[in-house]
Amino acid sequence: MKIFTSVKRFNEPLHLESGRMLSSYEVAYETYGELNNDKSNVIVVTHALSGSCHAAGYYDGDRKPGYWDNLIGDGKPIDTQKYFVIATSNIGSCFGSTGPMSLAEDGKPYRFRFPVLTISDIVKAQKNLINSLGIKKVKAIIGGSMGGMQALCYAIEYPDFANMIIPLATTAYTRPWAIAFNKVVIEAIRNDPDFKDGYYNPKDIAKNGLKGLAVGRMAGHISYLSKDSMQSKFGRSYVEQDGLYELFGRFQVERYLEYNGYNFPHNFDPLSYLYIVKTINIFNAARGKDKLEDALGHIKSKLHLLSFSGDILFYPCEMQEIKDLMDKIGNGDLCSYEMIDSSYGHDAFLVEVDKFGDKIVAMLEGNYGK
Amino acid sequence: MKIFTSVKRFNEPLHLESGRMLSSYEVAYETYGELNNDKSNVIVVTHALSGSCHAAGYYDGDRKPGYWDNLIGDGKPIDTQKYFVIATSNIGSCFGSTGPMSLAEDGKPYRFRFPVLTISDIVKAQKNLINSLGIKKVKAIIGGSMGGMQALCYAIEYPDFANMIIPLATTAYTRPWAIAFNKVVIEAIRNDPDFKDGYYNPKDIAKNGLKGLAVGRMAGHISYLSKDSMQSKFGRSYVEQDGLYELFGRFQVERYLEYNGYNFPHNFDPLSYLYIVKTINIFNAARGKDKLEDALGHIKSKLHLLSFSGDILFYPCEMQEIKDLMDKIGNGDLCSYEMIDSSYGHDAFLVEVDKFGDKIVAMLEGNYGK
Repeated sequence: MKIFTSVKRFNEPLHLESGRMLSSYEVAYETYGELNNDKSNVIVVTHALSGSCHAAGYYDGDRKPGYWDNLIGDGKPIDTQKYFVIATSNIGSCFGSTGPMSLAEDGKPYRFRFPVLTISDIVKAQKNLINSLGIKKVKAIIGGSMGGMQALCYAIEYPDFANMIIPLATTAYTRPWAIAFNKVVIEAIRNDPDFKDGYYNPKDIAKNGLKGLAVGRMAGHISYLSKDSMQSKFGRSYVEQDGLYELFGRFQVERYLEYNGYNFPHNFDPLSYLYIVKTINIFNAARGKDKLEDALGHIKSKLHLLSFSGDILFYPCEMQEIKDLMDKIGNGDLCSYEMIDSSYGHDAFLVEVDKFGDKIVAMLEGNYGK
Repeated sequence: MKIFTSVKRFNEPLHLESGRMLSSYEVAYETYGELNNDKSNVIVVTHALSGSCHAAGYYDGDRKPGYWDNLIGDGKPIDTQKYFVIATSNIGSCFGSTGPMSLAEDGKPYRFRFPVLTISDIVKAQKNLINSLGIKKVKAIIGGSMGGMQALCYAIEYPDFANMIIPLATTAYTRPWAIAFNKVVIEAIRNDPDFKDGYYNPKDIAKNGLKGLAVGRMAGHISYLSKDSMQSKFGRSYVEQDGLYELFGRFQVERYLEYNGYNFPHNFDPLSYLYIVKTINIFNAARGKDKLEDALGHIKSKLHLLSFSGDILFYPCEMQEIKDLMDKIGNGDLCSYEMIDSSYGHDAFLVEVDKFGDKIVAMLEGNYGK
């Protein structure tokens, strides 16, 4: 599978839900596979908090592939020998699309002058990119977690754009426990003196990391796992070289959190992180409507919802609620809901593709549930 | 109800499970009610992470009473007109008993020279205090969370000491998810420059707080609540004066975490916090035995286990396991287990006394389950 990477610049303004705008912006993207003649084989992949347009395949020399490489590729569930896959980096993030550390018109990074974005804003920029490739309609949009919020947003706000929407491990509006986990990282970043109240040198962060973001990310990891996955991954195993009676002796679960926490900020911009968790926190598919039903009533695409039984960040009941409301408003025939049995936790949508890959295949081929 | 407060000094060494010792130590304690003539009305109350010997009643001028004031007092479930209640401050903590900021023999605070303590060590010091009051046997020992670990430890290690043991919202060994939550606070404290690698001036912390401990405590609060209690307490309510599109605009759940997080370190020593979470992390009632059954086989007291259905820190299944093993080894008649229906989360053992107070009364009167 060949990776095509590019960045598209838009020199017209992007008007945002907040009433602010970006006077110009860039969207980084990757594509895999070939667009067919009637442009009917397009699949858009939307990414989660820490993701990027690098959804699949290996960059030269990399040991790790894109985040959904087990799902997307030649002969994989999203088969790049059949489909033309487009993955963008969300605006607001730090992987090539315009974000808080991009240069504003005065040639200096936006930093806090960057506007708060909503999922709708991200989707709008993303759709502009897709349209700019000459694509007016797509076969499917698929994404997990924050990517699922984007998929849902397409379904509601652009009802004619996609034949099919497949959100995984997500919600129609962010609940207080998810906001609480995000609060830990917000405060941890802001309190870190190396954050310098947002006026850090990004080279310093890339080199030294940022402990506040690391600690906040550790809290995040708790929400990405589950009691069962932690039990089976770590149990009460102790780090061999550490002493049980040393104050800072560590259990294996602690080493895991240290490793994943402290490595993360070398590759992720802290201001982007703050802006993204804000976007997640304020996500509400019902915003501007009296109730969620009114928003869901706009949907015309096939909507296939997949949740994971062990997800403690976006609980299965949150997706069940969408299905129930679709049924209630008479849109039930457009909508399927399935809970995948998994003890892994939220990250199952990334890790346990073997449990739902065949379902994605069936959805894309139009014979899911038949 | 009158509060009697005192501190008892022990000038003999306390030998610790780690192989280290405290050459002398102090235990602060409170008592409520009167010891009867045959000393048969003693109830020992053991406290949780952030608790102290101040279990009930008001200090002069205080607006808030002791942490279990809804459970303990004249005419309350643990009726101080009937019972003589003893509550100690755990060694290792920062409320009058010997802890890491106490002065070592050289007249300087121990700080990191303080030994890592186990639940057994804490219980040993506590039992020495009780014995020093001329009490050789008690009617009941009751405690929740880390207090429940102590209660369980009494049952196993001092089988003839208490007629009855009542652990609430606890576990026989700390699981990785609880260790993970504790990891966030450990790293947040250590990374805070104001912690000064443990060589802070405690007056500065009392005055200024410690942001690292505050952030870690926020993560802790997530584990003390539940999705349902967060939903009903906060939902998606927003702080009125804050803007939805302000980067640092806050939901009510965020304000709650800020309030509880940032206030906490003014009244809690960070080194104590590190030592206590270490004690919790390494708690394992089966240590030194081949398996938990072997430890539970020592029990001779009546053991009444209470869990809370919404507890995500110490899940009900953890206490169910104790009951199952007690049954398995033929000790089932000594042991009851009941899960209290509560959506509050872990802190239900403190907050929802109305749901289990009558059960405590029945246990103490010997007619629980009859």
